[in-house]
Amino acid sequence: MNPLLELIDYHLQRITFLLLACIAWIPLIFGTSLFHVSGLLGGAFPLSKPFSDLANHCKSSQPITAEEFHERQQRLASTLHHLNASAFIAEPGASANYFGNISATAWKLSERPLLLVITPVLVNDTQIEAKVSILTPQFEATRAKMLPIPHDSVEYIEWPEERNPYEVAVSALTIEDKAYLDESARLFIFNGFQKALSNVSVAPSAPEIQELRQRKSDTEIELLKCANEATLLAIRAVHKKMTIGMKESEASRMMSMALKVAGLDNGGCLTLFGENAALPHGSGSDRVLGQSDFALFDCGGSLHGYVSDVTRTVALPKTKVPSEHQAIWGDVLSAQTVAARVAKAGAIAQDVDASARSFLNLTGRGAYFTHRLGHGIGLEGHEEPYIRGGSLDVIKIGHTFSNEPGIYIEGKVGVRLEDCFYINSDGQSIFLTEGIGGQALSPWDP
Amino acid sequence: MNPLLELIDYHLQRITFLLLACIAWIPLIFGTSLFHVSGLLGGAFPLSKPFSDLANHCKSSQPITAEEFHERQQRLASTLHHLNASAFIAEPGASANYFGNISATAWKLSERPLLLVITPVLVNDTQIEAKVSILTPQFEATRAKMLPIPHDSVEYIEWPEERNPYEVAVSALTIEDKAYLDESARLFIFNGFQKALSNVSVAPSAPEIQELRQRKSDTEIELLKCANEATLLAIRAVHKKMTIGMKESEASRMMSMALKVAGLDNGGCLTLFGENAALPHGSGSDRVLGQSDFALFDCGGSLHGYVSDVTRTVALPKTKVPSEHQAIWGDVLSAQTVAARVAKAGAIAQDVDASARSFLNLTGRGAYFTHRLGHGIGLEGHEEPYIRGGSLDVIKIGHTFSNEPGIYIEGKVGVRLEDCFYINSDGQSIFLTEGIGGQALSPWDP
Repeated sequence: MNPLLELIDYHLQRITFLLLACIAWIPLIFGTSLFHVSGLLGGAFPLSKPFSDLANHCKSSQPITAEEFHERQQRLASTLHHLNASAFIAEPGASANYFGNISATAWKLSERPLLLVITPVLVNDTQIEAKVSILTPQFEATRAKMLPIPHDSVEYIEWPEERNPYEVAVSALTIEDKAYLDESARLFIFNGFQKALSNVSVAPSAPEIQELRQRKSDTEIELLKCANEATLLAIRAVHKKMTIGMKESEASRMMSMALKVAGLDNGGCLTLFGENAALPHGSGSDRVLGQSDFALFDCGGSLHGYVSDVTRTVALPKTKVPSEHQAIWGDVLSAQTVAARVAKAGAIAQDVDASARSFLNLTGRGAYFTHRLGHGIGLEGHEEPYIRGGSLDVIKIGHTFSNEPGIYIEGKVGVRLEDCFYINSDGQSIFLTEGIGGQALSPWDP
Repeated sequence: MNPLLELIDYHLQRITFLLLACIAWIPLIFGTSLFHVSGLLGGAFPLSKPFSDLANHCKSSQPITAEEFHERQQRLASTLHHLNASAFIAEPGASANYFGNISATAWKLSERPLLLVITPVLVNDTQIEAKVSILTPQFEATRAKMLPIPHDSVEYIEWPEERNPYEVAVSALTIEDKAYLDESARLFIFNGFQKALSNVSVAPSAPEIQELRQRKSDTEIELLKCANEATLLAIRAVHKKMTIGMKESEASRMMSMALKVAGLDNGGCLTLFGENAALPHGSGSDRVLGQSDFALFDCGGSLHGYVSDVTRTVALPKTKVPSEHQAIWGDVLSAQTVAARVAKAGAIAQDVDASARSFLNLTGRGAYFTHRLGHGIGLEGHEEPYIRGGSLDVIKIGHTFSNEPGIYIEGKVGVRLEDCFYINSDGQSIFLTEGIGGQALSPWDP
């Protein structure tokens, strides 16, 4: 052979090997098949970012302002004063996040208590100011002071390792009346305060305090709207890229990617094909999408801490949906619509739940609607109040809920449709996904 | 140009572009630099798996057997009987994992209680049997029954969405004397039971119950040994691959990979260079390793649920450690040694803490030892009892603790050395890392 060609041949072989090695690595790293890789690479060359049209949807969303945090703290202080209480105490989590911007991510829970304490201070006969304190392990004080708490003069109460943190807190805080502890706090925190407070008592948080976080401001509703819209747009985008024969894990990864591109944090979907969807919270198998299967996506992510929750049960253009399954799908949509009409300010939670349930009883499928209709949603994916049988909670302006009826026939089929809604200032329920069409139209048009 | 050469040139350019695109993707995917990629590729071509010599260390470790679970349940039932109590109740987590193989990973906590309940049943005058029940949301019962609970006849108590779960539990369980609730349960669970139990009370878990999980069996100690040894081996392996100029995030990723290869789940390290280590639980910066910096790794992972915790403060062969920092390192090692000698069955926790502290006071650095000496370790990374000032807890055979003195001078330097130990049947303290040399020898020989 010509030496030049030989040289070229040699180099081409090396390059090809290198190339194969590169490509072979990607699925190895992701633990996935080449199907996913092609999704990752946008399916085309040169490389383009998949789902990039989702990226702008919530780009202009802003986090809660310091002013709004201040208003929350003031409302809490007034409520405490009204309840004759000395303090509200919370571990890092949704309540501490709402009043003090301390999420469970910002400060990881450990056996050492770090607590947000808000106390009402009487400035004069009519004016009450919120005092914000942080109880922190002393050796962690520098890190605690880095927490971006929106308040002018946070007091840091440091407990050294050899002291009882609850005694340190009680002596620094002058708790003269009862203190309220957030209900998500761990029992040993409650127990610690109960032992340290000799004359007064610590009680699980009062309904008046819980209502402050339950009823959302306009800003909060805007964030929830964008998060839920972005989630539904992501489902619709993935739906278009799905193929018969793909695995649940592959579709789930595509969804996670789409939610990420859409700007949501911690995005992910319960992804269940065929009869796997008959267990509302899923199974462990990694099923392949068959010719006649529904695919159920129950998705969520968060935008500046506010969580989305959208479920769609979809079919692909080529799917041959059995007529009974299609009828189930239609019944679930109708149940969702019925509940949406009943839900309004002044309605009782159990009646809203019953409206969807009664409708499904009429169609003979009520026994397969095995869970409550909905849950509150905000800084937590599921939060009080709940729309369930037995609940006498009254639905109020500013409340936000999921509306998610479902039919589950074990071993056969599962259908759930979920859109969240809020109660507007007129007392009407409006889907958070309304701006992009709201409810699903059909299994093929989610 | 010769048309053939032109064609070849064209193709070579295309291939090179493809190749570059492939390689450029990898760091993009990992959010890392090419340094990491070379680590990932084993630094050589053809590809070899990095840290593969760690893979065999815990290969023969076995999970806790059904027999051992049964013994735990029986011991708990006897203890409850002895305490005149009707039940022990726990949410998914370390205690439910210990008695019923239900970790917080096996069942994710939600607002809907799923609870493990163990009740003592008098079979005859002398024999007590443990009855194991699971309170589960009714619509989740199928999934709950998939939990691999090691017991012959688990009773499932299903609460429908419209009922109060605590009332359902109380009426199914016949609680006649007090019930104990695990201390890590959330306050609303406690509150729910307190309201549902009209004649008897629910109390936070008793010391006698807590001690069951605190004192480890031989099997548990073997698992803890292997987990801690594998962690130390991983630190030593990464130490050999480190270079001046690398970032904390790069070293941290190498550590995660080494821990994974070593067979540990959820492995990771707090990775702090130079003055960043002066905050015991870290900062947010991604510092570069300088010529005179220590690197601190505080690492953990789990083996069949049992957690490791090892800290090493290391220097590279080329590191020029300031003599003061080297002296600090030596003091911390000596403090660890002193505490190891004092710790034995019968010793009081606060005295063990004080031994290390007194030594560091003598060297004039006691003020910079800002945290407790150690914590219990087992199914939780940090668990009762703690080795801290003010604790009158007695150290007993089967206890396992960390021994982790440290010196932290903010803005300058941080040194911590941590090995966990257990109290053997002779009452002596033995490092869990003893089998591979135990304590560090020098910053260069971890």
